[in-house]
Amino acid sequence: MTQPMREWFGEKERLRCWLGIYASLAAAQADLGLVPRAAAERIAETALTGEIDLVEVAATTVRTGHSTAGLVAWLQSEVGAAAAPYVGLGATVQDISDTWTALTLRRTGELAGQDLIALLQLLRQLTERYRATPMAARTHGQVGVPITVGFKAAGWAAECERHLDRFAEGRERWEVAPLGGSVGSIAYWGTQGPDLLDAFAARTGLGAPVLPWGCARDAVAEFACWAQLTATLLGRIGNEVYQLQRTEIGELTEAVAPGQISSVTMPHKRNPELAEHLVTLRRLVSASAGLLIDGALVEHERDGRMWKAEWVALPDLCSALTRATRACVDLVRGLQVQEHRMARNLAAAATTSEQVVTALAGRLGRDQAFAAVRTAIDRAGPGGAWMAELADDPRIADTDLMSTADLVDHDAIASAVAFADRWLRGGTQW
Amino acid sequence: MTQPMREWFGEKERLRCWLGIYASLAAAQADLGLVPRAAAERIAETALTGEIDLVEVAATTVRTGHSTAGLVAWLQSEVGAAAAPYVGLGATVQDISDTWTALTLRRTGELAGQDLIALLQLLRQLTERYRATPMAARTHGQVGVPITVGFKAAGWAAECERHLDRFAEGRERWEVAPLGGSVGSIAYWGTQGPDLLDAFAARTGLGAPVLPWGCARDAVAEFACWAQLTATLLGRIGNEVYQLQRTEIGELTEAVAPGQISSVTMPHKRNPELAEHLVTLRRLVSASAGLLIDGALVEHERDGRMWKAEWVALPDLCSALTRATRACVDLVRGLQVQEHRMARNLAAAATTSEQVVTALAGRLGRDQAFAAVRTAIDRAGPGGAWMAELADDPRIADTDLMSTADLVDHDAIASAVAFADRWLRGGTQW
Amino acid sequence: MTQPMREWFGEKERLRCWLGIYASLAAAQADLGLVPRAAAERIAETALTGEIDLVEVAATTVRTGHSTAGLVAWLQSEVGAAAAPYVGLGATVQDISDTWTALTLRRTGELAGQDLIALLQLLRQLTERYRATPMAARTHGQVGVPITVGFKAAGWAAECERHLDRFAEGRERWEVAPLGGSVGSIAYWGTQGPDLLDAFAARTGLGAPVLPWGCARDAVAEFACWAQLTATLLGRIGNEVYQLQRTEIGELTEAVAPGQISSVTMPHKRNPELAEHLVTLRRLVSASAGLLIDGALVEHERDGRMWKAEWVALPDLCSALTRATRACVDLVRGLQVQEHRMARNLAAAATTSEQVVTALAGRLGRDQAFAAVRTAIDRAGPGGAWMAELADDPRIADTDLMSTADLVDHDAIASAVAFADRWLRGGTQW
Amino acid sequence: MTQPMREWFGEKERLRCWLGIYASLAAAQADLGLVPRAAAERIAETALTGEIDLVEVAATTVRTGHSTAGLVAWLQSEVGAAAAPYVGLGATVQDISDTWTALTLRRTGELAGQDLIALLQLLRQLTERYRATPMAARTHGQVGVPITVGFKAAGWAAECERHLDRFAEGRERWEVAPLGGSVGSIAYWGTQGPDLLDAFAARTGLGAPVLPWGCARDAVAEFACWAQLTATLLGRIGNEVYQLQRTEIGELTEAVAPGQISSVTMPHKRNPELAEHLVTLRRLVSASAGLLIDGALVEHERDGRMWKAEWVALPDLCSALTRATRACVDLVRGLQVQEHRMARNLAAAATTSEQVVTALAGRLGRDQAFAAVRTAIDRAGPGGAWMAELADDPRIADTDLMSTADLVDHDAIASAVAFADRWLRGGTQW
Repeated sequence: MTQPMREWFGEKERLRCWLGIYASLAAAQADLGLVPRAAAERIAETALTGEIDLVEVAATTVRTGHSTAGLVAWLQSEVGAAAAPYVGLGATVQDISDTWTALTLRRTGELAGQDLIALLQLLRQLTERYRATPMAARTHGQVGVPITVGFKAAGWAAECERHLDRFAEGRERWEVAPLGGSVGSIAYWGTQGPDLLDAFAARTGLGAPVLPWGCARDAVAEFACWAQLTATLLGRIGNEVYQLQRTEIGELTEAVAPGQISSVTMPHKRNPELAEHLVTLRRLVSASAGLLIDGALVEHERDGRMWKAEWVALPDLCSALTRATRACVDLVRGLQVQEHRMARNLAAAATTSEQVVTALAGRLGRDQAFAAVRTAIDRAGPGGAWMAELADDPRIADTDLMSTADLVDHDAIASAVAFADRWLRGGTQW
Repeated sequence: MTQPMREWFGEKERLRCWLGIYASLAAAQADLGLVPRAAAERIAETALTGEIDLVEVAATTVRTGHSTAGLVAWLQSEVGAAAAPYVGLGATVQDISDTWTALTLRRTGELAGQDLIALLQLLRQLTERYRATPMAARTHGQVGVPITVGFKAAGWAAECERHLDRFAEGRERWEVAPLGGSVGSIAYWGTQGPDLLDAFAARTGLGAPVLPWGCARDAVAEFACWAQLTATLLGRIGNEVYQLQRTEIGELTEAVAPGQISSVTMPHKRNPELAEHLVTLRRLVSASAGLLIDGALVEHERDGRMWKAEWVALPDLCSALTRATRACVDLVRGLQVQEHRMARNLAAAATTSEQVVTALAGRLGRDQAFAAVRTAIDRAGPGGAWMAELADDPRIADTDLMSTADLVDHDAIASAVAFADRWLRGGTQW
Repeated sequence: MTQPMREWFGEKERLRCWLGIYASLAAAQADLGLVPRAAAERIAETALTGEIDLVEVAATTVRTGHSTAGLVAWLQSEVGAAAAPYVGLGATVQDISDTWTALTLRRTGELAGQDLIALLQLLRQLTERYRATPMAARTHGQVGVPITVGFKAAGWAAECERHLDRFAEGRERWEVAPLGGSVGSIAYWGTQGPDLLDAFAARTGLGAPVLPWGCARDAVAEFACWAQLTATLLGRIGNEVYQLQRTEIGELTEAVAPGQISSVTMPHKRNPELAEHLVTLRRLVSASAGLLIDGALVEHERDGRMWKAEWVALPDLCSALTRATRACVDLVRGLQVQEHRMARNLAAAATTSEQVVTALAGRLGRDQAFAAVRTAIDRAGPGGAWMAELADDPRIADTDLMSTADLVDHDAIASAVAFADRWLRGGTQW
Repeated sequence: MTQPMREWFGEKERLRCWLGIYASLAAAQADLGLVPRAAAERIAETALTGEIDLVEVAATTVRTGHSTAGLVAWLQSEVGAAAAPYVGLGATVQDISDTWTALTLRRTGELAGQDLIALLQLLRQLTERYRATPMAARTHGQVGVPITVGFKAAGWAAECERHLDRFAEGRERWEVAPLGGSVGSIAYWGTQGPDLLDAFAARTGLGAPVLPWGCARDAVAEFACWAQLTATLLGRIGNEVYQLQRTEIGELTEAVAPGQISSVTMPHKRNPELAEHLVTLRRLVSASAGLLIDGALVEHERDGRMWKAEWVALPDLCSALTRATRACVDLVRGLQVQEHRMARNLAAAATTSEQVVTALAGRLGRDQAFAAVRTAIDRAGPGGAWMAELADDPRIADTDLMSTADLVDHDAIASAVAFADRWLRGGTQW
């Protein structure tokens, strides 16, 4: 877990946040004249600065089996008899925990968003620097025609931008105040329910929804979807580095921190630590996201079977997501592009075969050309000198075909460069 | 599967769609002067009207183990020698299947979107008609204070609107043309790759992305997320009806089609068919969505392990989603609101207990009031006459407390009505 | 988390367990004469009783980024120079963590198994006591013909037995010693690898597999499957109680602990706490199980992307599973069977409709009989006096049909009782 | 889908199977004297040989919305008035579909089991032939010390055996007759319910459970678990080949079928078709398994929301599983072991680094030895001549250390061979 998330989910900061929600609620009620202003101020003051007795709060929680009874009892005793009746008036546990959920989504989005913007900048630099550095494209695990490092980086960057776009759209829906009272209609406050919802939203700095969340968990589920989509990109980048760092490929390598040990016994090992973590974290995000999305199939106005899993799954998801965004920034910042390995791997594979067939097809016909090239490659074996084998082919040996000027097209990466440039030119709002 | 989807995924329409993509590709290449206009027109004509030899196409597909080889061979032989070399020039299987995927997302969105708009209208009518019809809210499966039918319907409607909003935002990202060639960079066409992508997009009526999709499957994954979120609302509505149609509750009931048999042996059975289907379909959508979202963790420039599961999961997802949107429209259109059962269920539960405690608290103090009411309810048992028991409580028996004018607040549903009205006033862009 | 699991997963007990594994390893090597016996004994002594410096261990772990480097360094310095070279000789991190995993599976199985046996006994008592107590069966949420409480309990019990059978079979595969060394072949010890594996297994009290686990994670995945299947039964029991405790049904109710608050405002609420938890816990087990099962798709001889998620998912799964087994024991132990509600709910539904049709069919013909009954039920409405309506039916009114002796079969629950008795007679090995 | 599965799930064979179940039911009832023997024989004869009118059956099914009404109507009209009343007496849809499910599990297990036994034999041959053929082990994607091809194959084989063991244990639980009638208690037949269950089981050749399945779906869920575990091994083998067939590694390669095209444009491509399919199929199995396992959380005595998803998920799972078992047999049968690539890849990596450190440590001390080797490897770069660099190290240059006889241990694979032999010696019951 990153440090800011560790703090956010720590018991102390969480209880303080809950107290702040009680303060916002009382303030909003005072704004509408429903409770005395002095009581609201007294609650706010205590919520902000009171010394919480964690042991007593925990004891009451266990004794009553009720999630907020302990905290409320403490707060009521601290604010004194005059203000005590105005603590959480008309509110239920879900009001507190859902508002905390909305604030958690906001905080997590803030942290992940910052990292994604940093990642985008690093990917832009990578694209610019290596826009025309050839490397093998690979399909089905096999080396194909070349692309460029910058083209690959631009693909990551463009997707990263789309996740930022999704974030900007989605947060309008999930950074909202979910006050609902006992059954989601703020029944306690009668016709003033809607106004109270707006006032509470203003006090918490969250948006005001048309209706309370209640049993509509699509905001939480949408956030989970976004987290999962985003983590999948991060996992994809991690997996790509893991694979390209293979001993036999060695095209992209992670920076190694001083003192870091890959293996206590084998000095030659260089394990892709962050790269692997990104895939692992993606899997963790995905499992938690599944819980949150399925959890939106709520029955009636409140459904503990669905809702309470959020209390576990949401912190897990937020922790794993922000750890992944941070790890990906670190990975890309230290990423080493091994150009000589890229060149060697390209050279070893018959990646120009398509172009050679095209060049020969004019005189031999396409079928003969294809057959000649395939035979030469088979004879040479992996990494072998197949162009020499081709020159020996009886169909070619006594001709000038091998010297044909257009036999090898040196511009195989032209389109990859063009696309990388197109993305660079496009600019970004991020 | 609904009829339009059955047609869309039928072999005939799918092959016709693939041919249309070859036609769009040739047309786009002609637009840029890359292939002769006459060849492109010949290809378009054949693609549109040619009689496809399904048996031969299938045979070649099996023989070569290659997904488009059969269709291309047929098309090339049909268009004649002059146009044949311009069929699918520089394109690979993924270009055809991914463009078909984008068109499938568009078609599915069209069908689901229409249903969702119809559903929204039905839910609006439900909200209007029953905005002030009291029914029990239920939390943790227990009857709580009342809400109104319209409040519940407004909750569904507001979420439905949000799914339509998500759809409008997301389709900009997924209804785009994914041309990429052998490795995703349109390598065959060199520097003209980007222009060809734009021309192809124009010809297919899809948007033009900055870069080809290639290994970035976030568009497909986002669609899957949207489908899953949307299906979860539909499943939630279905589950709500399933539960509220229980014999012992009977508040909402499905329309029964003439001739429909719930049970061949038990004449009293009225099973919630559509309601159950909606939950089942939600589960199917979710399983397919999981495959599509996980499938975005692609390795390198093309990854059959991930990509080919789309060929199964996407049709499954689209079929289940559109069947669910249609079923939900049918369910809500025929939904019967059993007001007398709602009233009876409310009356049988001690739903006014909170208000009675409040009324008594002024004289007895809150703790005594709470204890008196709880004791009365326990004595009366489920559905029993607890108010009579309360009247006998020694703390109350010889007082005028029971006649207190404010004992029962007849405005318990005021906030629910206010929220239903607020949503109705809000209007919608849909 | 239950207390025994909290301890097991606590840092202190975990490190002690890891140290014990180092001791077992050295002892096994001494058994084969590979290391001096004195060194092995020194290591065992320190591992068992040494005061671990948690702060220093943690610091080294962070500095090296290596999971066991800190602990090994501490252990080596404690045992002194003579024994230090024999600490973890030829072992790698995975040997320690996988052995701990196997021990965790054993410990978790022990705890869960005890609970399941207790649950089975409680269910047997429930079956015996209520073998002939009628209650409504429900299909598609609708009341059908009666079964008995004992029949329902026997169904849970029989499934519980099958999970215990699966456990007994599976533990032979997962409670085994997974020593494998750097790449899973115990390469360090050459031809003595297999013997060392056996000796190590003997020292840890785990079984000896033919080959080290290495990248074959099917043991962990099978345990996850078992946990998921078992948790699903627990969740099914919980859900059944949640539904049958509904205000309108009230047939099964949870015991309420003294002092427990369901709602701070509504004194009439009795929420099914444990019942809901069981469904929630099932969902948590399922999410972790998914991670562990998918995690068996390992690449090569060690794959951090898959393996390290076990470090999170396994403790989560074990904690949730044992909390669920315990909660289910508590739920069933306190379960209250409300026979009067069962009788009332049966009476209110037309559950004898099938039998009445059969009785009338002899004279009226089956179609007329079915129609007459359906009409009567429709007229009476839910819970209405449909038999009176039937008596008024013109086809029946002036006949003696209603008095037919066989009209109502009082033995509707005969088969349910017979099956409950059959299960009770069957006995169990558990 | 493989041919046997295509037939099994084809409409014709499915309806025939359903008819056979009606025949078994009538026969069992005749065995107990509940229905006339002649009627049962007439039903059996028609079920076995009658010409099914598929169009009419489908039409009735659609009209009634009832899954078996069409087939039953056809069967009743075919058997004539005397036998008609005895068609499916006391049975409900679930009896037919669940029995078909049990038979499907048996059929699928039969097909998959045969393939797994064939796979096991092929893996045994692979183990025998290549028991001592060195290849690199890989951890975290990095080349480590050597293992042997046979060791890897033995790891697959041993896991394959365990899946066969699980199958043998599980089928006792899932190949059972699930007759339950309207609510799972065979209520129609009263006290004869248990005997009828046994007689029906005898007639279908399935086992007789203590209680009908009813809402206990753990048999189906356990099968799904088994399928998922098994498919994960198949996917793991596929993924291993996919990775080791990489152009840059080339150690294991799939056989290429004559006429098979990997790429229409690039003659050098050799895609790992079956290997990729195995991973894809594993993912499909897993998604369906998730549906079936979650589907065991059934409410009450029948729950369409859970149960009906089986009708989609089970055929999908069985099809994907058997396609995977068959594909894996084909893959392993044609697998080509490229020994020269294995040798070259081993030679290029510094896999003896651990042994060299050990050899130098005696004179230099372990820390100096480790540092010298790491420095040499870093200087040489990937695939470089690090032993030459080491010889130049000032700590070594003027010594005879490099010539130390024990510097290179030629028996690095000794333990791998020993384990492969141990598995081969172990024999198998399969």
